[in-house]
Amino acid sequence: MTGAARAVSHAAHQSPDVVRLKRLGIDTYQEPVIYLARSSPICRSEGWMAQSRIELSYDGQSIVATLNVTDGDLLAPDEAGLSEAAWLRLGARAGDFVRLSHAPPVESMSYVRTKAYGRHVDAAGIDAIVRDIAAGHYSEIELAAFVTAFAAARPTVDECVSLARAMVANGERLYWGHAPIVDKHCVGGLPGNRTSMIVVPIVAACGLTIPKTSSRSITSPAGTADAMETVAPVDLDLAVMRRVVEREGACIAWGGRVRLAPADDVIISVERPLDFDSPMQLVASVLSKKVAAGSTHVVIDIPIGPTAKVRSAEDAASLEALFSAVAEALDITVHAVQTDGRQPVGRGIGPALEARDVLAVLRGEAGAPSDLRERALLLAGEVLELGDAMPKGAGRSRALETLERGDALYKFEAICEAQGGIREPPRAAFTDVVAATRVGRIAAIDNRRLARVAKLAGAPRAPASGLEIHVELGDVVRRDQPLVTLHAETRGELDYAQRYLAANPDIIALDEEEHR
Amino acid sequence: MTGAARAVSHAAHQSPDVVRLKRLGIDTYQEPVIYLARSSPICRSEGWMAQSRIELSYDGQSIVATLNVTDGDLLAPDEAGLSEAAWLRLGARAGDFVRLSHAPPVESMSYVRTKAYGRHVDAAGIDAIVRDIAAGHYSEIELAAFVTAFAAARPTVDECVSLARAMVANGERLYWGHAPIVDKHCVGGLPGNRTSMIVVPIVAACGLTIPKTSSRSITSPAGTADAMETVAPVDLDLAVMRRVVEREGACIAWGGRVRLAPADDVIISVERPLDFDSPMQLVASVLSKKVAAGSTHVVIDIPIGPTAKVRSAEDAASLEALFSAVAEALDITVHAVQTDGRQPVGRGIGPALEARDVLAVLRGEAGAPSDLRERALLLAGEVLELGDAMPKGAGRSRALETLERGDALYKFEAICEAQGGIREPPRAAFTDVVAATRVGRIAAIDNRRLARVAKLAGAPRAPASGLEIHVELGDVVRRDQPLVTLHAETRGELDYAQRYLAANPDIIALDEEEHR
Repeated sequence: MTGAARAVSHAAHQSPDVVRLKRLGIDTYQEPVIYLARSSPICRSEGWMAQSRIELSYDGQSIVATLNVTDGDLLAPDEAGLSEAAWLRLGARAGDFVRLSHAPPVESMSYVRTKAYGRHVDAAGIDAIVRDIAAGHYSEIELAAFVTAFAAARPTVDECVSLARAMVANGERLYWGHAPIVDKHCVGGLPGNRTSMIVVPIVAACGLTIPKTSSRSITSPAGTADAMETVAPVDLDLAVMRRVVEREGACIAWGGRVRLAPADDVIISVERPLDFDSPMQLVASVLSKKVAAGSTHVVIDIPIGPTAKVRSAEDAASLEALFSAVAEALDITVHAVQTDGRQPVGRGIGPALEARDVLAVLRGEAGAPSDLRERALLLAGEVLELGDAMPKGAGRSRALETLERGDALYKFEAICEAQGGIREPPRAAFTDVVAATRVGRIAAIDNRRLARVAKLAGAPRAPASGLEIHVELGDVVRRDQPLVTLHAETRGELDYAQRYLAANPDIIALDEEEHR
Repeated sequence: MTGAARAVSHAAHQSPDVVRLKRLGIDTYQEPVIYLARSSPICRSEGWMAQSRIELSYDGQSIVATLNVTDGDLLAPDEAGLSEAAWLRLGARAGDFVRLSHAPPVESMSYVRTKAYGRHVDAAGIDAIVRDIAAGHYSEIELAAFVTAFAAARPTVDECVSLARAMVANGERLYWGHAPIVDKHCVGGLPGNRTSMIVVPIVAACGLTIPKTSSRSITSPAGTADAMETVAPVDLDLAVMRRVVEREGACIAWGGRVRLAPADDVIISVERPLDFDSPMQLVASVLSKKVAAGSTHVVIDIPIGPTAKVRSAEDAASLEALFSAVAEALDITVHAVQTDGRQPVGRGIGPALEARDVLAVLRGEAGAPSDLRERALLLAGEVLELGDAMPKGAGRSRALETLERGDALYKFEAICEAQGGIREPPRAAFTDVVAATRVGRIAAIDNRRLARVAKLAGAPRAPASGLEIHVELGDVVRRDQPLVTLHAETRGELDYAQRYLAANPDIIALDEEEHR
């Protein structure tokens, strides 16, 4: 027990605002919750009630939690329970004493209201919001209001720049001492598009530095961090990440642990259940992570398709313009590449299944998905050219050579080893093949609802789950030909996914004319 | 135990989706939460995790709750805990069995996203949202996103009409069989403006029907329902409310219990902690309640002042236009009255303190606050004229006569008796007088921060708490003259209010010139 904690413990019997922590074992996901007995002196004297926001001080630090009030014998009057998220943030142990006080109103919420009422918020206002979010002062509904207000009220480029800057300023930042530092990012919406795990080793094998941090899935069946985690540890702290990059010129790490732009991770925790994507959040989120990671040159992959995140070339152009404007203000160079987003990439959708596709490409296996391979080569070529490692037009052939000679695989394995060791992705306990009910030509594939099938099967939480798709646009299929194989780690999840797919047979749509 | 509950109980030992309810006694305020052990068969087979949305079926009805997962010995694998809000909505008892399933995604959230992305939502979309909200299908963050999206994306009159219609359609509705049915409503933002409790008995004593339902406070130290509740029961169900109005021509009831436009009450539960007021929500909320209550003619009081909810005559005009447009589409008549909103009305701020002011006016006491009396007479006159009980220009004098003859007091007492009995408002345990620190003339009073002082003192939750203000704009005060008396039910709350007032001496601002 530290000095500060002892000091609190010492005061325990004199002051009603000091309570003893009891482990209730309640997992609320991200929301810090404190549980107090209705009969506790502090609830009575302070007039606290359920939903009050309470500040907890312990060992020189403090967090804010939402109050739940208990009746009955769950807690004694001098005890407090914490949700698991609150235990984690506070770093306390059962039996420790904490001091409680009324959390002051979150003053920066006034800027969220300003935005919600359609007015402009300046850089100082946005910085105040992001600082409070990074410090855990926003409740979930306040976060939801922030996300929605800034999505809905048509943010300006200025606001987007302010948001990105504030997210960088309120977190760790890496400096590498040389340039260029390259990176690539896909704006998403295309299931199976796991090019990063191929692009990074190609580029690093060509001598460029590429400190890649990735998110876990926000609304998709897998993010790069989810897929990479089935092959190697991704939960690196800043010191380990730095060592890996200094040794191998690259890493493929989860961005959450390194605390680059940590407010972004808090924001994402609310965007996910809301299934919200706004251009401003997207651009600020991507570029703040890149700037914090020390990158100077970034290729942005923007897949376009009727069921991708970006639906038209015009939307892509406007997103590209926002990326460029914000990047310029942040003093980094971006180059956007519009790609085909009409169907999933590769065969697998889900963390382990996507990792298998990646390994097949890196290992040069005969059945490796050629679309994933082609996209990775295109993007690696663009990164090599943007990073000045190759002259304009020569990037792709250099990337191809690096892949075919096995240099990329060798580099990938080295990165995995440096991150803590390589392993084979897991396999799911339950699988089920869904076949065509008639002859036809594949006319359209709905990325969004196909992603939902993979999520119902358990992805990304259960890493081996998801689906494999066995057909592409334009394929002619016969009756009973397999279209999809579902993978799940539980029988219940396999059932969900099957039922949803059966109820939505047009997710993989067959041409009418071919029906005879 | 009913047949349906027995049927569930019978299946309990065969099916992992049936669990036995255990009373944990956790009060989360409005949010229904279900607690399940991580080791429970259902969590394991279904892949559920904290924050999953779960549907609970019991005795032919169902609710949706957010999952919290427990470790340790809080719950056995076949048990489930519920938050108090969930117990209440489900109407179950400890030991009963409920059936659990994965709540389907809330389809109407797609319309919230549509709005958040700046596009128009049609009447069918808004009706779908409101139906889901009234049914309790929205989580708190989904409600926060809805409130913010419709505030921020500049709703159209059409959307506002759709919202009001949907709120009426998804709830109870009263019909009185005759017209006019009158009402009045203040858009708020003016502490102490408790005119309804005076206007209603005046108007009813003059023979008009006025079935007044009021909200509890949203963001203020007291709503009319809060103040009225210190004098008489307001928690009437629809049948009782109808009996009171049929007997006395009027009621002053809490709107939440009668389930007129119940979605509105759910929305308000999130607007309150966000401290959000949007014109669309306001107009839809007010008019949906009036239409559902059967009103045909409504006077709207719009106080204007730099720290009132409406800050300028232009804002008032635009709000008035929105009220008129939506009222016309809903086939009711509204008449807006712009009033002075530069300072609080009456002396008291807080439920019981405001009720005392009302009683003083009704009883014709010598010290009754004349500003409250004047505003009530003005508005009562407008209602009498709008309801055709008096010719144009003769309403106020009729109202005055009704008040002075004691008819209004007699009617108020009759209404209270019909609602369940009249009582005197409670007095607070702790009071403290805050005095002027120098000579000066009162130059400005900040309604918003003064309201915050009353809220810190415990209002509206603790009905006797709040404050009395002893000065008005333009008054010249001497050093040590009392400005405010704070009232609190606990010592801790009195301290909060004192500290905030001491830190913000400009809440009641003295003219600089007077300082000598």
